[in-house]
Amino acid sequence: MTTVHVIGAAGYAGAQLAALVDAHPHFTLGQVTARADAGKRIADVAPEYRIDAVLQEFDLDGVAAGDFAAVCYPHAEAAAVVSELVDRGVRVVDVSADHRLTDPAAYPQWYGFEHPRPDLLAEAVYGLPEINRQAIGSARIVANPGCYPTASLLALLPMKGRITDIVIDAKSGVSGAGKTPSPDVHYCSVADSVRAYKVLNHRHTPEIAQQMGADAVFTPHLVPVDRGLLASAYARFTGDAPTQAELTKAYVDFYDGHPFVEVVESPPGMHAVQHNNFAQVCPMVDQASGRLIAFGVIDNLMKGAAGQAVQNLNLMAGRPETEGLL
Amino acid sequence: MTTVHVIGAAGYAGAQLAALVDAHPHFTLGQVTARADAGKRIADVAPEYRIDAVLQEFDLDGVAAGDFAAVCYPHAEAAAVVSELVDRGVRVVDVSADHRLTDPAAYPQWYGFEHPRPDLLAEAVYGLPEINRQAIGSARIVANPGCYPTASLLALLPMKGRITDIVIDAKSGVSGAGKTPSPDVHYCSVADSVRAYKVLNHRHTPEIAQQMGADAVFTPHLVPVDRGLLASAYARFTGDAPTQAELTKAYVDFYDGHPFVEVVESPPGMHAVQHNNFAQVCPMVDQASGRLIAFGVIDNLMKGAAGQAVQNLNLMAGRPETEGLL
Amino acid sequence: MTTVHVIGAAGYAGAQLAALVDAHPHFTLGQVTARADAGKRIADVAPEYRIDAVLQEFDLDGVAAGDFAAVCYPHAEAAAVVSELVDRGVRVVDVSADHRLTDPAAYPQWYGFEHPRPDLLAEAVYGLPEINRQAIGSARIVANPGCYPTASLLALLPMKGRITDIVIDAKSGVSGAGKTPSPDVHYCSVADSVRAYKVLNHRHTPEIAQQMGADAVFTPHLVPVDRGLLASAYARFTGDAPTQAELTKAYVDFYDGHPFVEVVESPPGMHAVQHNNFAQVCPMVDQASGRLIAFGVIDNLMKGAAGQAVQNLNLMAGRPETEGLL
Amino acid sequence: MTTVHVIGAAGYAGAQLAALVDAHPHFTLGQVTARADAGKRIADVAPEYRIDAVLQEFDLDGVAAGDFAAVCYPHAEAAAVVSELVDRGVRVVDVSADHRLTDPAAYPQWYGFEHPRPDLLAEAVYGLPEINRQAIGSARIVANPGCYPTASLLALLPMKGRITDIVIDAKSGVSGAGKTPSPDVHYCSVADSVRAYKVLNHRHTPEIAQQMGADAVFTPHLVPVDRGLLASAYARFTGDAPTQAELTKAYVDFYDGHPFVEVVESPPGMHAVQHNNFAQVCPMVDQASGRLIAFGVIDNLMKGAAGQAVQNLNLMAGRPETEGLL
Repeated sequence: MTTVHVIGAAGYAGAQLAALVDAHPHFTLGQVTARADAGKRIADVAPEYRIDAVLQEFDLDGVAAGDFAAVCYPHAEAAAVVSELVDRGVRVVDVSADHRLTDPAAYPQWYGFEHPRPDLLAEAVYGLPEINRQAIGSARIVANPGCYPTASLLALLPMKGRITDIVIDAKSGVSGAGKTPSPDVHYCSVADSVRAYKVLNHRHTPEIAQQMGADAVFTPHLVPVDRGLLASAYARFTGDAPTQAELTKAYVDFYDGHPFVEVVESPPGMHAVQHNNFAQVCPMVDQASGRLIAFGVIDNLMKGAAGQAVQNLNLMAGRPETEGLL
Repeated sequence: MTTVHVIGAAGYAGAQLAALVDAHPHFTLGQVTARADAGKRIADVAPEYRIDAVLQEFDLDGVAAGDFAAVCYPHAEAAAVVSELVDRGVRVVDVSADHRLTDPAAYPQWYGFEHPRPDLLAEAVYGLPEINRQAIGSARIVANPGCYPTASLLALLPMKGRITDIVIDAKSGVSGAGKTPSPDVHYCSVADSVRAYKVLNHRHTPEIAQQMGADAVFTPHLVPVDRGLLASAYARFTGDAPTQAELTKAYVDFYDGHPFVEVVESPPGMHAVQHNNFAQVCPMVDQASGRLIAFGVIDNLMKGAAGQAVQNLNLMAGRPETEGLL
Repeated sequence: MTTVHVIGAAGYAGAQLAALVDAHPHFTLGQVTARADAGKRIADVAPEYRIDAVLQEFDLDGVAAGDFAAVCYPHAEAAAVVSELVDRGVRVVDVSADHRLTDPAAYPQWYGFEHPRPDLLAEAVYGLPEINRQAIGSARIVANPGCYPTASLLALLPMKGRITDIVIDAKSGVSGAGKTPSPDVHYCSVADSVRAYKVLNHRHTPEIAQQMGADAVFTPHLVPVDRGLLASAYARFTGDAPTQAELTKAYVDFYDGHPFVEVVESPPGMHAVQHNNFAQVCPMVDQASGRLIAFGVIDNLMKGAAGQAVQNLNLMAGRPETEGLL
Repeated sequence: MTTVHVIGAAGYAGAQLAALVDAHPHFTLGQVTARADAGKRIADVAPEYRIDAVLQEFDLDGVAAGDFAAVCYPHAEAAAVVSELVDRGVRVVDVSADHRLTDPAAYPQWYGFEHPRPDLLAEAVYGLPEINRQAIGSARIVANPGCYPTASLLALLPMKGRITDIVIDAKSGVSGAGKTPSPDVHYCSVADSVRAYKVLNHRHTPEIAQQMGADAVFTPHLVPVDRGLLASAYARFTGDAPTQAELTKAYVDFYDGHPFVEVVESPPGMHAVQHNNFAQVCPMVDQASGRLIAFGVIDNLMKGAAGQAVQNLNLMAGRPETEGLL
């Protein structure tokens, strides 16, 4: 059994992650920490998971070399803890954004803070197993992808290098906005409506561009859904457009051997991926305009956060990629 | 034209009320006030109403004898303003709970404050036009009923004095909980769920009992709906149960001449009353158990708050009861 | 491994049941049947379950003595199949209503058909494990309870014999209405509304009365929720009302050793029981009126149908009660 | 007073239109017709509108030259009725798609039928008042725009001729799919999900292209909303991108004098346009990529159907454009 500490378990992603670790046949919960909620039973914060443990304050002295940790702090706050943990010999999945961008200069620009450890930034592996499985397996730090990038990249990566003029119109459930009450997540604001937000300046934009090796217009929308994230992506083929059969085959081949990505023929809704770690992608070709239209859908808390973190932990620990996730 | 001041217009009920007054053919908006939001345009706080005015701080010197006012402050904060306004010669609809209960001792017990003006409490008319139309017409202070009491009372009043063992199971949309963000009104808390709250101690309980002249078990539930409130009421006939035809006739007769109450034959949903001032009531008799089952449904912000306030203002101003409401 | 046939797997409950059997460590899927949808892959009918099998027409010759079956046909259609299966030596959980009422005369009255096998009716065990665990273990036919009775009975049974004047106000998610399209389940009919239906004549009424040994007023409501069912139950204690502590203890004791019932202190919402087989019950006492107010909440497709069926199959097969359900 | 016949009033758009005509100060309801629902009271089909009339079968002999009519039949069925009405001297708003495309060859291709009256197709005016106010005023036939084209065109038209590579990602509420029950509009299918449909082949595609004078990739999505339609549009400026100030000014100027289009600064949600005839558009410029991102939001039954039809009827009848719509 391997000990996994969950640092920051009071939010939606952290609690889901603690639940997955708790139920995992090979992992055992170490510290399950919170800041404002320290001292509460997890079952009071997230009763649906029935985890029998108390949220504690993070105690660096209570971790041991060889342990694993997943850090679910907000961006700008995770970096310091990750740094401490790694220096102790703990292998870490950083669920925050603090190790996703390789360029240190991107942090002041997009996240408003100077990154404290550019060396770890350089070392961190981007934790999308469908492209980095090998490197994740031996990484000390895995940067767990953002929810929007996960859905968008899974929809587009098989055509990486063959497309340009990328436009991503994404629709996210409200749990993606986090648990903190605000006017924007009030039921009466969200229900019966859809709206775009952070147009042209959402922080997942450079993360997508970095992985695609190409700029993308990225526009997130909030939809009246609890969990679920759909990315509808549009791009122009730089060369001749493939036939639909060629396109489908390229996707099927690309995801061959990747257990959590399903290539589907009809535009996917959210129900088949909610509460599990699957992604569904659906590529379509518009011969008339020479365009790709590709859909990617995930549960933003599972494949978009906690599930993917466990997938990464499995790879890091040499366990089957799907363990504890099916 | 009569000037109507709307005191406390930043919340859901206050903004709806300002919109109704703004569009009313006989009323003209006087002061439209807020505290935290003073200085903002109403259109920024409640864009759906397109009211061209700025929220100001309440200015007692800006009101004149003969004006009307509707006070939408929270309970315990409305009483002082109402008192000041009435002393100036302004006739007031108090949309808060501060003048609904006739017994001053009920305020410390249920609302946690000593009522500052028991004399006004004694004078205030309970603003349910279906039973107090005449008195409302000449009142200085009208206590606008609570949303739950409105739906419950309309469902039960035609049988007042003939029933006992009253149980009211009510379901309210989230706007009834107000605009302030909290974990309880977070979209992810409310969506896909129904739950009871404040069991046995909701503040509308004594208000219902006072009007029915009988105790009632009252259990409110929060439902994933924006606007709308359904009260399902159960009671035992003290004498012989009427036939269904007799029961229906009693309700039709009771509401004859009351333009906003519709007696319907099937249990009503919320769609026919949303965004308007109608109530629908549906009485049914269970001959086997000698019970009344009666449903009452309203829009909690209209017949349950702002719409009813305008209905009361119409009566106070000698205008047609439905003016500005159809 | 024990073979379990799922007869009628195209609907919501049947597909959920097939998924639970498919993932069960001790059960293996036998025939998975449908009528209109025979020939389709289950994954096309219910993609969220990822069951790799084809819906077939029911083939009596393909079942063997010693097999188990769960029948999810509509009422009036299940009885004949159950009869055939039992005569073959198959032990059956009837998820339909066709073996729930012990009095044959209740079937023409409530369900509109003459029961073909009163002998099997007499033999069938009511499949609520919390009261019939032993008998279920050796039964040939288990009548799986209705969704409303499950939530209502779990909320009330600990006080059976001590209460009267029972009123149950229940709120069900839309999956309880089944998969067949109709105006009543159109999104635009259901969303933003709550309404009662089948007042005084819902077929779960006699089932509740039979188990409680007392009549109950039962009023179901449709709420804008996918899965989830809340029963809010009100009753009068025939003797002195217990204290809250006594009441809670009585419930805790009653459900001691029953792994799927959680006695909770606050009125439960639906989130903690969705997609699992747990029920939460919350009993409260109103000393003023001498009344019990008790809430019971379940997932109508799990503890209210398919999950409870697997719980029953576990008991019948001598397996741990929670196997395949946690 | 002018008589307006509403042909096909049993659906969502038709009933809304009948309600608007019924409440209009200058129009009076003529025939209000239905086919399957003929003989029913409108209040039974659409109780929220409280229209006191009976749905009748269409009677050509009951219309008179000089009357107006709005036809809300499904496409391919409206053309014949429109033809009969116009030949009688009735001026018609065709709410169906049957007169929107100017090229007769588009009808077999996109709608699957041969258009019976290419002469009327040539004569019909596209009923988007913001570009065709004058022509609508004197038209015999006005082709009421589709809901998706209305939101998309209002978002893009001010840049017509200056943009290329148009991608429209649209999100529609379920009432846009019509009232007929089907698996796709079952509450349990729609709730908690978003999905694209009719990718690359939705019938509103050529309508948008025709008005923009440019091809567009158009992808509609179904969202868990009753009423409301958001078009998020992306395009590349063919010349230099304007500044944000220039862009905003161009939109404000374009819609100057058009009472139902509001140019807003933040991406609009649906609440401010639901149940009214307003559209909100929000243009933004992405200097980095030289792109326009523009949002248009409407109520699909109001500005997207019935409200716009009344706006057109007002213009045809020489009434103020906003009459009966504010």
